[in-house]
Amino acid sequence: MNIILLSGGSGKRLWPLSNDIRSKQFLKLFKKSDGSYESMLQRVYSAIKRVDSDAIVTIATSKNQVSAINNQLGSEVNISIEPCRKDTFPAIALATAYLHDVKNVDLNEAVVVCPVDPYVDDDYFEALNKLCKQAEKDDANLVLMGIEPTYPSEKYGYIVPVDKKDTSEVSMFKEKPKIEKAMSYIKQGALWNGGVFAYKLKYVLGKAHELIDFKDYYDLFAKYETLNKISFDYAVVEKEQKIQVMRFSGKWKDLGTWNTLTEAMEEHIIGKAMLGSNCSNVHIINETNIPMLAMGLENVVISAGPDGILISDKGESSFIKPYVERIIQPTMFAEKSWGSYKVIDITPESMTIKITLNAGTSMNYHSHQKRNEVWVAILGKGKTIVDGMEQPIKAGDIITIEAGCRHTVIAETELQLIEVQLGKDISADDKQTFRLEK
Amino acid sequence: MNIILLSGGSGKRLWPLSNDIRSKQFLKLFKKSDGSYESMLQRVYSAIKRVDSDAIVTIATSKNQVSAINNQLGSEVNISIEPCRKDTFPAIALATAYLHDVKNVDLNEAVVVCPVDPYVDDDYFEALNKLCKQAEKDDANLVLMGIEPTYPSEKYGYIVPVDKKDTSEVSMFKEKPKIEKAMSYIKQGALWNGGVFAYKLKYVLGKAHELIDFKDYYDLFAKYETLNKISFDYAVVEKEQKIQVMRFSGKWKDLGTWNTLTEAMEEHIIGKAMLGSNCSNVHIINETNIPMLAMGLENVVISAGPDGILISDKGESSFIKPYVERIIQPTMFAEKSWGSYKVIDITPESMTIKITLNAGTSMNYHSHQKRNEVWVAILGKGKTIVDGMEQPIKAGDIITIEAGCRHTVIAETELQLIEVQLGKDISADDKQTFRLEK
Repeated sequence: MNIILLSGGSGKRLWPLSNDIRSKQFLKLFKKSDGSYESMLQRVYSAIKRVDSDAIVTIATSKNQVSAINNQLGSEVNISIEPCRKDTFPAIALATAYLHDVKNVDLNEAVVVCPVDPYVDDDYFEALNKLCKQAEKDDANLVLMGIEPTYPSEKYGYIVPVDKKDTSEVSMFKEKPKIEKAMSYIKQGALWNGGVFAYKLKYVLGKAHELIDFKDYYDLFAKYETLNKISFDYAVVEKEQKIQVMRFSGKWKDLGTWNTLTEAMEEHIIGKAMLGSNCSNVHIINETNIPMLAMGLENVVISAGPDGILISDKGESSFIKPYVERIIQPTMFAEKSWGSYKVIDITPESMTIKITLNAGTSMNYHSHQKRNEVWVAILGKGKTIVDGMEQPIKAGDIITIEAGCRHTVIAETELQLIEVQLGKDISADDKQTFRLEK
Repeated sequence: MNIILLSGGSGKRLWPLSNDIRSKQFLKLFKKSDGSYESMLQRVYSAIKRVDSDAIVTIATSKNQVSAINNQLGSEVNISIEPCRKDTFPAIALATAYLHDVKNVDLNEAVVVCPVDPYVDDDYFEALNKLCKQAEKDDANLVLMGIEPTYPSEKYGYIVPVDKKDTSEVSMFKEKPKIEKAMSYIKQGALWNGGVFAYKLKYVLGKAHELIDFKDYYDLFAKYETLNKISFDYAVVEKEQKIQVMRFSGKWKDLGTWNTLTEAMEEHIIGKAMLGSNCSNVHIINETNIPMLAMGLENVVISAGPDGILISDKGESSFIKPYVERIIQPTMFAEKSWGSYKVIDITPESMTIKITLNAGTSMNYHSHQKRNEVWVAILGKGKTIVDGMEQPIKAGDIITIEAGCRHTVIAETELQLIEVQLGKDISADDKQTFRLEK
């Protein structure tokens, strides 16, 4: 099957572990049988490959997630990069054009679109496969997945099918309802709309050409910033008459808040932490190196990382968004294509960072105008290039980089540096990158 | 008045902010009228000076608290340093000998002994003054303060006076009782024993000479390590017949747990933190730079520092000791005579530290056998001496120190360094200090 995974933006509801750069799908919270942890993205990706080893998986996302995706899935995965965020219709049109023009998928083949972060079992991916096959039959232009509701949720839209068959025509759509309405919809046999659907490439490309003037993927990519924001539901789904829904009754959870996310965790503690006396239903995810002790708490989630520390009643945790928006500070941790960095000290005229480069990777060749930098290597070996001059670096070595100097570091083994930035107005924006002359 | 403040050891009950080096009396948790914060030590010291500006205050403590005391009270305060911890009788004998032999206090003068950390108002110190005057009258060898109980506490010993006068003979002492006994003691007119008493110097020095073979303060100091551990209560108080108790009915709190300590805090938050929706009776003390958000919590204390993060129901917080004893890690923050240091990164073969030296201070001249060090100055100016060679240092400068090199830094202004330690088996014990030849 062809599958487009929509990888969404910043998840403020999972602050402090998700931020503008690291979305919730990248959090490694799910224990594997070997004892290590995987993210929602890794969990979904490996399930798809398990169910259909030939599946062509394309991740539709923005530029700033590419490093994290490559770190977690390797560089082989297809990524349809949105030059900027433009809602789901442009994103799906771009990814569909990518499949056709870059991956040479036939216009008559079907593709299934699904969010990157459902918490599901393998039967879900088998259902996606069936959805894809149904879309290839030409019975309908669009085949939606309808999830059997387990409670009268106010968080989802509802799809009302004309009958109770496995695959039915859609009678109508209902917006997110209040609980009483939700109960009555469910009585009528309505299903949750989980944002999962399949179509033939030619169908969505046709819709795209109706709404946007473009030639092919490359042209669409080039003019992406000029497109209007419009959702796929509004642009396509709600207007389509030839539309079916397939029922899915397996496990399906949307782990969008700490409350729901901790329900899916196998253990109560990830990271350095201890539950003391009289704790019940407490979950701790501690990504800092500071040991944590919880005592006498009930129904509480604690999650801590370099960006923040949340201590919340589980039910209350779904209301964190407005509070998190008030917390303004630089990103203290980020995954990069070459590894990761973590801010370990900030003063008005300095910033100290721990940099970890994976073996075989390198930074961009770049310079800063307003700061000098000092690198002290604390692990591994590699080489540095400063203003064109190459020299080896190993644990214990010091490199000084004046403002204006072009510099990079290339890791032979895993390489860790303490970087001290010195200057006024230190900012991530103060960076120019250059092509490295060989 | 002469007053000896007993400054006790590590307060595990106030983990993570107190540790082996920083005891609870040094935590700056009490807001002053100018908006800044002071510690219990500073609060008590300034109250004594307010009540009796001529008071001679001597702090009896161990060596590792001297830096913190000088940082908080200045270098003028008298400190009777215990070479090692030997319980209260040797400590009080040493401090009393110090008053006589070093401070030339007459043997017929009285001194009052009191713990360094009661949470009290000025009337308490006026009562100490009266206690001291009563001890000079020769009616008794020892005059205790008896605190009017406010509830039948199981935490304190009780003093039973013979009558209900302000100053009475002591009838008997009672060990920490169970609650029913405590209630019956209180009915009999018993008072709490807060460990506060006054005596003439010659009385305790006489007792000391009975139990210990020593000439004077200097001799006692020299043989301190050979002394037996014995409490003042056991060695002196319980055996004394000529003993009185003076009633005190003012405010007196022992802030030994997070529960009682937070009751005395003026604000709910110290440090970077926000109380979100539905929090009641929540206190946060955040000494890290990581912003904190609490949501939907009740009767909870959160305290965080480089050594740990505690999240506890307030009542439950008095039971943390056994859990804290299981958390073994190097001290991540310490006050030193020259300022402070904070560990900001640890790897198996490196440790990165932020060092802040106060203006006009300097470290010991010292060397390490098993590690190289790199200093990157990020603020201020001063000079360094490395193997006898002096050179200026200012923000942006780098100093490398090979294992075996003797080194120090002298701060002209406030000086901040990022220190990267490199080597196997990095340990605080790997340090030799030297006299600096002028």
